[in-house]
This record gives sequence, C-alpha cells and structure tokens, in this order.
Amino acid sequence: MEDLNPPATLGEIGLQRFAPYLMNRIMGRYNDSIQKTLAEGGLTTAKLRTLAVLTSHNGLMINELGVYCVIEQSTMSRTLAAMMDDGLVRREEDENDSRARRIYITEQGRAVFDQFWPAMGAASEGMFEGIDEGERETFVTTLQKILGNVRQNPF
Amino acid sequence: MEDLNPPATLGEIGLQRFAPYLMNRIMGRYNDSIQKTLAEGGLTTAKLRTLAVLTSHNGLMINELGVYCVIEQSTMSRTLAAMMDDGLVRREEDENDSRARRIYITEQGRAVFDQFWPAMGAASEGMFEGIDEGERETFVTTLQKILGNVRQNPF
Repeated sequence: MEDLNPPATLGEIGLQRFAPYLMNRIMGRYNDSIQKTLAEGGLTTAKLRTLAVLTSHNGLMINELGVYCVIEQSTMSRTLAAMMDDGLVRREEDENDSRARRIYITEQGRAVFDQFWPAMGAASEGMFEGIDEGERETFVTTLQKILGNVRQNPF
Repeated sequence: MEDLNPPATLGEIGLQRFAPYLMNRIMGRYNDSIQKTLAEGGLTTAKLRTLAVLTSHNGLMINELGVYCVIEQSTMSRTLAAMMDDGLVRREEDENDSRARRIYITEQGRAVFDQFWPAMGAASEGMFEGIDEGERETFVTTLQKILGNVRQNPF
C-alpha cells in the first residue's frame, strides 16, 4: 500500500502554491485595471472582449464568440445587439447555412478597439515585468496546455 | 531609431498567445466547475473562497480577507455576516488593537471546507493532466512573480 498517494490538502499545498488561487488573484487585478479604462471610455468588459476576439478571429458564430469571450449566451446576445446598434460589429448570413449568422467587426469597431488596446497591452506587459522572454514563452505554452485540459469546446 | 520597438497589436500577438485571454478562459472553466459543486452543496463562491483562505491564513483582518479572496469589501462583509450566523467563522478582537477584528475559521467551517476540497483539488489537478512536476513548478513560480508584479497590496 506504499504507493497509495492521498491527495494533499490545501493546507499542505499552501495557498501561495495553489495555481487557481494565484490565477484568480492575477485576473482580478487585470480585469479591474481594464475595467477602469473602460468606464472612462464608456465600454463594458463584454464589448471589449468581443472586439478583442473578433480582431484575431473575425466571423465567429455567436456561440463560439461566447466561449472565446467567456461570456454566457444571454449576455453575449444582449452585448452583440447593443454593438450592432453602435455600428461596432455586423451580422452576416453564413455562406453554407442560411440559418446561421456570423459576427464581423466593422471598421468603426476596429477603431474603437485600437483606442483601448494600449491599456490592455500595457496591463499584460506589466504582468511580465522582470520575467525574461524564455520564461514567458514557457508560461504561455503551459497555459495553452491547461486550456486544452479544461476546455469543453474544441477551440 | 532602429531600437524603437512599437508595441505589438493583439492581431500580431495572436489571441492564443495572449496570456490574459488564456487565463480568463481557464479560470472561467475552473470557477464554473466549482460553482456547480457549490450549488449542489448550498455554498457560494465567496463563502468557499473565505473558508479556503482561512484554512491556510487563519485570523486575517476583513480587508485582508477581501484581497486574498478577490472579493470586494461590501460582498465580503455580507458574506462574513452570513458565515458567522452559520457558525462557519468567528470574529475576535485583535490582541494589539481593540478596534480591529480578526476572522477565524471554526471547527464546523473546517468540516464544511473538507467536504468541498476534493472538488477544488480535483479541478486543480485536472488542469495539470499530462504536465510534469517540473513544468508545473516552473509555472507556479512564474504565477507568483506575476502576482508580485500586479498586486497592489503587500501580500
């Protein structure tokens, strides 16, 4: 029975070595700092995430967009409706399925995202201060593996 | 002017290599899976985090607890009031400052946390499936550095 390895308790692991705790703290700060910039510019977190995701994955379906943005479908639909009214995104019929709709960022949407990107980019850069390129790349590679482990969608 | 290095755009970095995006996706999944277990057991995320933090840092001040739990003060105060009513935590006068109060987990609080820890621990372990011990330790070390960069509190 020697190889029986009972799971460690949180007290044994220690909060400072518990990855979900560290990530929640980090993302709490990141999202707070973004939120401050957003409030000044009259955008919501959901809208900014939508613009950010469409910047690199233009033409997603609404449900895909919700996964990428980590926003639940009802909020996602409301957000997109408001963004279409504001001319930040547009909806188009899918080429192969006339019942499906794809979402595209507009030129105006890109212009708005470009205004907010410096704050997002700076918040991200600020995380890695004093962390060299190699460690940063290793970190991102591990994050990609973790996302591969936990995601319920194929993307 | 050759060393002038303009910041990359998100399109250039790519969403899949943008650390805040990856961490938001990962923590969205983690928090969702915890939430499911909590709903079944009649606890909230705020209550579980409070129990988890006190398990390794017993006797924190309310404001410190809010930082560790990534919960804003008004929610934290409401959460603690409910937890005291339920006998999960107790409040004690600080030894050195009679106006200050410290929060301690009770035996009952520990028993409740012990019921939920397996789900939290499993969600955390699930993240690291197929990731070896060395890579995991490097990852946690980088997370600690990042938290050191972004936190506004000394702890």
